[in-house]
Amino acid sequence: MRIGLLTGGGDCPGLNAAIRAIVKQGLGEYGHQIIGFRNGWKGVVDGDIQPLERQHIRNVLSMGGTLLSTARFHPREEDGSMDAVLQTLEAEKIEALICIGGDGTLHAASKVADAGVKIVAIPKTIDNDVAGTDLSIGFHTAVNIATEAIDRIHTTAESHNRVMVVEVMGRHAGWIAVNSGIAGGAEIVLAPEEPFDMDRVVKFLQHRHKAHANFSIVVVAEGAHARQGSSMEYEVQLGKYGEIVAGAIGERVAAEIQARTGFDTRLTVLGHVQRGGTPTPTDRILGSRFGVAAVDAITAGETNVMTALQGEDIVLVPLPEIAGRVKQVPDDLLRVARVLA
Amino acid sequence: MRIGLLTGGGDCPGLNAAIRAIVKQGLGEYGHQIIGFRNGWKGVVDGDIQPLERQHIRNVLSMGGTLLSTARFHPREEDGSMDAVLQTLEAEKIEALICIGGDGTLHAASKVADAGVKIVAIPKTIDNDVAGTDLSIGFHTAVNIATEAIDRIHTTAESHNRVMVVEVMGRHAGWIAVNSGIAGGAEIVLAPEEPFDMDRVVKFLQHRHKAHANFSIVVVAEGAHARQGSSMEYEVQLGKYGEIVAGAIGERVAAEIQARTGFDTRLTVLGHVQRGGTPTPTDRILGSRFGVAAVDAITAGETNVMTALQGEDIVLVPLPEIAGRVKQVPDDLLRVARVLA
Amino acid sequence: MRIGLLTGGGDCPGLNAAIRAIVKQGLGEYGHQIIGFRNGWKGVVDGDIQPLERQHIRNVLSMGGTLLSTARFHPREEDGSMDAVLQTLEAEKIEALICIGGDGTLHAASKVADAGVKIVAIPKTIDNDVAGTDLSIGFHTAVNIATEAIDRIHTTAESHNRVMVVEVMGRHAGWIAVNSGIAGGAEIVLAPEEPFDMDRVVKFLQHRHKAHANFSIVVVAEGAHARQGSSMEYEVQLGKYGEIVAGAIGERVAAEIQARTGFDTRLTVLGHVQRGGTPTPTDRILGSRFGVAAVDAITAGETNVMTALQGEDIVLVPLPEIAGRVKQVPDDLLRVARVLA
Amino acid sequence: MRIGLLTGGGDCPGLNAAIRAIVKQGLGEYGHQIIGFRNGWKGVVDGDIQPLERQHIRNVLSMGGTLLSTARFHPREEDGSMDAVLQTLEAEKIEALICIGGDGTLHAASKVADAGVKIVAIPKTIDNDVAGTDLSIGFHTAVNIATEAIDRIHTTAESHNRVMVVEVMGRHAGWIAVNSGIAGGAEIVLAPEEPFDMDRVVKFLQHRHKAHANFSIVVVAEGAHARQGSSMEYEVQLGKYGEIVAGAIGERVAAEIQARTGFDTRLTVLGHVQRGGTPTPTDRILGSRFGVAAVDAITAGETNVMTALQGEDIVLVPLPEIAGRVKQVPDDLLRVARVLA
Repeated sequence: MRIGLLTGGGDCPGLNAAIRAIVKQGLGEYGHQIIGFRNGWKGVVDGDIQPLERQHIRNVLSMGGTLLSTARFHPREEDGSMDAVLQTLEAEKIEALICIGGDGTLHAASKVADAGVKIVAIPKTIDNDVAGTDLSIGFHTAVNIATEAIDRIHTTAESHNRVMVVEVMGRHAGWIAVNSGIAGGAEIVLAPEEPFDMDRVVKFLQHRHKAHANFSIVVVAEGAHARQGSSMEYEVQLGKYGEIVAGAIGERVAAEIQARTGFDTRLTVLGHVQRGGTPTPTDRILGSRFGVAAVDAITAGETNVMTALQGEDIVLVPLPEIAGRVKQVPDDLLRVARVLA
Repeated sequence: MRIGLLTGGGDCPGLNAAIRAIVKQGLGEYGHQIIGFRNGWKGVVDGDIQPLERQHIRNVLSMGGTLLSTARFHPREEDGSMDAVLQTLEAEKIEALICIGGDGTLHAASKVADAGVKIVAIPKTIDNDVAGTDLSIGFHTAVNIATEAIDRIHTTAESHNRVMVVEVMGRHAGWIAVNSGIAGGAEIVLAPEEPFDMDRVVKFLQHRHKAHANFSIVVVAEGAHARQGSSMEYEVQLGKYGEIVAGAIGERVAAEIQARTGFDTRLTVLGHVQRGGTPTPTDRILGSRFGVAAVDAITAGETNVMTALQGEDIVLVPLPEIAGRVKQVPDDLLRVARVLA
Repeated sequence: MRIGLLTGGGDCPGLNAAIRAIVKQGLGEYGHQIIGFRNGWKGVVDGDIQPLERQHIRNVLSMGGTLLSTARFHPREEDGSMDAVLQTLEAEKIEALICIGGDGTLHAASKVADAGVKIVAIPKTIDNDVAGTDLSIGFHTAVNIATEAIDRIHTTAESHNRVMVVEVMGRHAGWIAVNSGIAGGAEIVLAPEEPFDMDRVVKFLQHRHKAHANFSIVVVAEGAHARQGSSMEYEVQLGKYGEIVAGAIGERVAAEIQARTGFDTRLTVLGHVQRGGTPTPTDRILGSRFGVAAVDAITAGETNVMTALQGEDIVLVPLPEIAGRVKQVPDDLLRVARVLA
Repeated sequence: MRIGLLTGGGDCPGLNAAIRAIVKQGLGEYGHQIIGFRNGWKGVVDGDIQPLERQHIRNVLSMGGTLLSTARFHPREEDGSMDAVLQTLEAEKIEALICIGGDGTLHAASKVADAGVKIVAIPKTIDNDVAGTDLSIGFHTAVNIATEAIDRIHTTAESHNRVMVVEVMGRHAGWIAVNSGIAGGAEIVLAPEEPFDMDRVVKFLQHRHKAHANFSIVVVAEGAHARQGSSMEYEVQLGKYGEIVAGAIGERVAAEIQARTGFDTRLTVLGHVQRGGTPTPTDRILGSRFGVAAVDAITAGETNVMTALQGEDIVLVPLPEIAGRVKQVPDDLLRVARVLA
């Protein structure tokens, strides 16, 4: 078979592990050809291909990013780019396509599958909000990086008697915030799942600093927002590409805490470091397992499905089933973050 | 309630996260008293207690080991130590006991529960072979450490055109070997689940070094053994405490490869570094969730159960159900290790 | 002897190693008493003491921050705080004082020494701009953290064809920027030592992106500034405590590059993570050696001196000699950063 | 100019940083050609060349090992290999040669220089025992790895009340042992510089475990040995290539401590992990600076010299001056390790 491969959306650690597994399993086990497209869907539209051989995947297992490059672009019917996708696939005699990406890429993949192309998708997003799978590629590394940063900030908070606010990624779901908050021992975690009340945040900090501590760590997901009608009004601020403005909620939260408590308060916005660098073993294994499973599925004739981790097993879930759903942090995990504060 | 707490068996990273969660949840949420026993079951026999307050758990979240110390000792009926356990628990007015440990500790916990003591257990073992749970405390950190070591050894293997053999822990199950082998890109993984044939190992290495590489990495679990009747005979070597002799299988495998292939072959035995140091965020979160769940379960009157991770959920499984069972690496994961070689 | 000890200015990794060494060497080798002051000079003014025993320094070697806490406060004659310092020292019968700190702390130390107090100082500053010593405590860890961040950002830059701007600390000297820039393989390093010309920065990036790459990394020290009369005007922006506003120069540089080149450009401000967390072995060793040397010097009757690393040796330099001097990055190191771009 | 380049002896982290700097500076600044030889001196004998262009050095800055491969082989007059070296250099029209290596490579380099070849050498050895330079490439990373391992082992030692013996590299000098011992807070460091007396080691441990602790960490350099006439006799054990047998001294020391004190004692032999993997920023910077300086020196007509770090400066030292000298750990650093125990 001649199998196309693309990575779409934001880059993250673990993508190369998946690409490597697809090439190894595709070439070695089945004798397929693997044709990479550069820059995600954009490369399909442009016909920008890179056939992948064993030499391309040497030493990439521990490298972050994606050797195929990526772009935040998705084909649409309105502007003819969807047609261009189908034309390229036909011109290049691509019999099936493996798409690695998040929300947008998976949505596009499902539409391309509807147009008759055999497609298997692999979920990646450091936000971890893709439905149907316990983990998406990139999330685990992001939690590690965020926790390491909180560990570092902890010592400064303690040495200087400060409130340290740390803003992490997570637009529709607070997976990074909640997990790194628990792992880093944060006092307060603000996640999109639970709109917060600044009065209660302030009361908690004042009580804590009076009772038994003189510093605190507050982790804020970029998509966190205040409860309507509560004492702090805040609307999520978007940039020109519709992305959340980094630092916006963090700055606001830090300013409010400083103003209302008088505690010396500082902000750190983790930003891009969360999505780069060497993947954790967990992300390498996840990418490797997803890659092998995707090639197996393609070879077995599956289509319009996504590889997923459920418990200890890799399974296939129908793409239409997960479309438009956001996997949020469950209540019991939010509660653990709260009770360990 | 007055709740006893002990950590038994070998130490590992993540135990302090569990202890911290138990103290925070026990004191903060329910107003219980938490009475630690030093040195595992030995401390219960000896009545060596340490009541735990908030000050004891400051800054321990990121620390490896166990602040309660531990010992490889389990109470038995034959020598009166089981009676001593029950006497101490009565003398100290312990109403329920939380036991954190592996195979041996869980087995003892179940027997103490049979004697009428309310018990909730938390699984920890870097071998990850406790049944009923996807993860036990300590395993995830061990995989990280082993992968980091393989990453390091990789560059020497490549620079010197060598076969590097790395022996990792895993007596009855090859979880560390298989996971670090996949994550580190090992060419061969030898695990207890699949008795190996040295002829095939040698043939694989010779083929690889002729075809497209001049180095290889072989990961060996300490409990790996040769297939009966195959060309290399080997019996697992035990030390005076019944533990596997570190380095024994590794030395044998390295010597055989060197002798049969003529390739320059070297051994690294990871040993104790696998079970020490700062826990990964995953182990901190797992310990924290287990700790909270254990206190909740105790308070709700549960007994003779173990906290377990199944998929994304923390559940309780009956201790008798998991007794005597070893969770081994499933075939599909062994296959991933094989096809990505 | 009864020796006072304080840590002043911003916290950083390696301070606890120095404190530990002072206590071990002071108590163990000479039988001195070590009296800690909390919160730097503020604690001396307030008489806020903590006598240090062996139990206070257990497990602190690998911990960031300072167990004595610190504050950005320096005694002055004008407001009576200098008198308060002398009164406390007399009241507490302090025979000599060890001061660990940066520029401000060292300056105050010298003035207190002039007032007749026996003083030995230990240099710490992540900026590494204290004269007379190759290294100050905290700098080495900061370079490691900054390099790790650049490594992570590198993969995103490459995967997304972006210019990534990274702002690091360094007000009067670009030690962190230059070292992490070389270690991280940055294309451009902007340091206070060499006022930059945005025209040349832009020309370099355009040439590079046309010739052989589609991404770049630009490291900016917070104290970097444009050359007078060049195409970009910029004045260093100060906050209410006189500190540089984090992100100010980084935002400006990123905006200019984006506007003038059209390349997709993003900013990361490392901020507080640079000064926290586990110290590198180098900072632990440096702190340990400085601590031992300070106690030796105090015991030998030295005063108004600072411990310093020169090559492989620990030496003493007179405090007045280094007062008011800023150690900047030498030309040959700036050149290495330039030629390796 | 047409400049040859080789890496000889054992591999270590930082070599690729030097190679990258040589290529960048050679091609970019001066327009030289850089001709790599594979496998150290062996490649020169065999005429195994690889011309190095910019594409060969992409992404290598953070990679361990050497992209040119290496071998433990040195040319000798006796077997004609020295003649073969000179013939290859002439046949390939090599005008000057940069040799990166340790003791053996530097010795050979000096002899080749005596034969009229222009040579500049760069020191690398994780043992750090090359004279004339504060640091050699690879040492700093090795200390980091060893310290990390000691940190991990520390928690097990404490949780299990054990004596943990850690054997690290260092044949003629104990740089790794002393530095990682200080950084890791070891109780005892045994280095070749100070032949030890097992009676005193035992007495120290017994005193410590009686007085205020129940665990200890002992770091042993592979080249450590007992004082003649003291209570433990031991001769350094050599393997077939004349290398020290890994684990030999460690096993002996652990066995003696166990036997004489009765304390539960365990050994970890760090082995190959010490010389692999991602270089620390310090080793990347050192390699980069040495690489730039070597090309500058070659271009300026220097020969028979070695680049060296002295304090903050890169200087050139004559190769004959350092021949046959071993740089050992100075007394004041040995004393720091002792007093902080």
